[in-house]
Amino acid sequence: MSIYVLIHGAWHTGDELADVAGSIRAAGHKVHTPTLAGNRPGDPKTVTLKEAIQSAINYINDNVLSDFVLLGHSYGGMIISGVADQMPDRIRRLIYWNAFVPADGESIDDLSPSHYVALFDEITAKDSSVMLPFPIWREAFINDADLATAESTYNKLNPHPIRTLKDKIELTNNLAELHIGKSYLNAQQDISMPHSLPWHPRMSEKLGLFRLVEMQGSHEVCFTNPSLLAKKIMEAGRE
Amino acid sequence: MSIYVLIHGAWHTGDELADVAGSIRAAGHKVHTPTLAGNRPGDPKTVTLKEAIQSAINYINDNVLSDFVLLGHSYGGMIISGVADQMPDRIRRLIYWNAFVPADGESIDDLSPSHYVALFDEITAKDSSVMLPFPIWREAFINDADLATAESTYNKLNPHPIRTLKDKIELTNNLAELHIGKSYLNAQQDISMPHSLPWHPRMSEKLGLFRLVEMQGSHEVCFTNPSLLAKKIMEAGRE
Amino acid sequence: MSIYVLIHGAWHTGDELADVAGSIRAAGHKVHTPTLAGNRPGDPKTVTLKEAIQSAINYINDNVLSDFVLLGHSYGGMIISGVADQMPDRIRRLIYWNAFVPADGESIDDLSPSHYVALFDEITAKDSSVMLPFPIWREAFINDADLATAESTYNKLNPHPIRTLKDKIELTNNLAELHIGKSYLNAQQDISMPHSLPWHPRMSEKLGLFRLVEMQGSHEVCFTNPSLLAKKIMEAGRE
Repeated sequence: MSIYVLIHGAWHTGDELADVAGSIRAAGHKVHTPTLAGNRPGDPKTVTLKEAIQSAINYINDNVLSDFVLLGHSYGGMIISGVADQMPDRIRRLIYWNAFVPADGESIDDLSPSHYVALFDEITAKDSSVMLPFPIWREAFINDADLATAESTYNKLNPHPIRTLKDKIELTNNLAELHIGKSYLNAQQDISMPHSLPWHPRMSEKLGLFRLVEMQGSHEVCFTNPSLLAKKIMEAGRE
Repeated sequence: MSIYVLIHGAWHTGDELADVAGSIRAAGHKVHTPTLAGNRPGDPKTVTLKEAIQSAINYINDNVLSDFVLLGHSYGGMIISGVADQMPDRIRRLIYWNAFVPADGESIDDLSPSHYVALFDEITAKDSSVMLPFPIWREAFINDADLATAESTYNKLNPHPIRTLKDKIELTNNLAELHIGKSYLNAQQDISMPHSLPWHPRMSEKLGLFRLVEMQGSHEVCFTNPSLLAKKIMEAGRE
Repeated sequence: MSIYVLIHGAWHTGDELADVAGSIRAAGHKVHTPTLAGNRPGDPKTVTLKEAIQSAINYINDNVLSDFVLLGHSYGGMIISGVADQMPDRIRRLIYWNAFVPADGESIDDLSPSHYVALFDEITAKDSSVMLPFPIWREAFINDADLATAESTYNKLNPHPIRTLKDKIELTNNLAELHIGKSYLNAQQDISMPHSLPWHPRMSEKLGLFRLVEMQGSHEVCFTNPSLLAKKIMEAGRE
């Protein structure tokens, strides 16, 4: 039995990981799917990256978790990097699932293609949130879904606090040198990052020695194939 | 119900797409598989790229087609790019299946490795056609077939008009800016373009926002796995 | 019926290919799995690359083999390149399975990331052998196994003669110009070479015209999925 803590991506909450969590629980594990500060209903959208990371740390402390597998999806990679930096001894293994792997001082914007940065800057709302336009969601995030699934899942998303994409992370440790197991879980048809500037190996190799696990699917396998995702998370997370 | 127009690649005719068309029809769609000028029995091999594109436009006009999904395979990517440039309002979505995506003024030769260009120049026949040598077909085009399939399918090919590989396309619009849905369908073991100079993402990302769909197989999945190809075309072609 | 000669990788012996050989034999073929000089029980670990190549040639001569398919795994790619250079007329086809493809004068160290070279230099034993550290085996070589399989297979490995990694191969012929069929069999999740410096197409395209066959799995599919490996070897090895 292992304990999994799954950290969602931008525009998501932990609720959208319910199906995958269910499949992992069915295999005998404990699973937590907290929602980060900034993505909870009613949260101010001025939340900073540091505050979002702190909200994950608070969750772990409140639930007195240790020896757990900590997974981050997409933006969640920034969060788990920040958590691991502050409490490495509590974590058994990190799993980056098509997730950002930052060096000290890097932001998501630093790691993203400039067309995303320009677009998000242009469409940021007055409350400091940014919403992903549906056409990008449909074609580049959930390209393996039919239209009905693309629409129903889009309706579950929430505007994301833009500062968490712009803030540069502060890390005391080099992730590659932390004595924690590291896995990178890569969905092969994920083009939310263009394949000319891909998740893997561009992000994964910043981890130093890591375990690669791959699966078919888009950036949003949590919606299009949660049972496959659960299986692959368990392959990535096992000893 | 959707209407699909499937445009074959070099050395092929529409007849070789009969199996995949049959699978798409069985799912309730209408499918057209015209043969381009230059590849029809008896056609002169001096056909130009412009004439080949015009033959596709004529077919669409003659059949009074609109709101259709237009797919191009390999060389067919040049053709559908030319068609989309001239009648964007008639097309619902473009699918490039391991196909060339040209910018204005680019030819297939411009987008191909120099060893192909040199080879084809050397073996061009007096009638301005070029035939693909069997060893290249067997190893780099239909690498997922057994020898009997490689041979029987090779016997269906026809010499290809060399000018269509050399002519630079004239495009009025930037494909990435056309308001048409765009998909790229990529067979992962397709080495007809070397993977150091690959179809995807080198061609696909010229489309701007596009949907990626991938499948196992070589450049010639139409022969080696037509039902998988049909399934993936429908994933690429749906709303 | 074909004859297959399977050449193991570094740290391995032919014995570890027993399962895959069994599956190929079950399909009606003959299979040889010799162990190279330097990896046989009791062999001195000062063996050179030239001596290891010679041991494969001796095996082929002793067994009077001809018209066979010669496969090399990893380090085995150096060996089959050396064998093919010396007896090209005896070989029907070469299969490089996530294997090194050297040019004349290249060593494995020349083709490997510098962190491996530095590490192996640091941990070379007094008898001139080097052992792969378990954490690298577990995460980067057999990433698709559970821990029990990773451990039990690690216990089958033997320290590898370091000179075979450092010696520069002598080749009279350019592999790409040898009139032998060539296939590259690539396991997609093999990160024993980092994917920023990958097996395919970095090694494969040195073969000139070659057939690509791919499969799911790590560098050690011989342990984690021998029946899939056997199937893919037969696809790579057929006419």
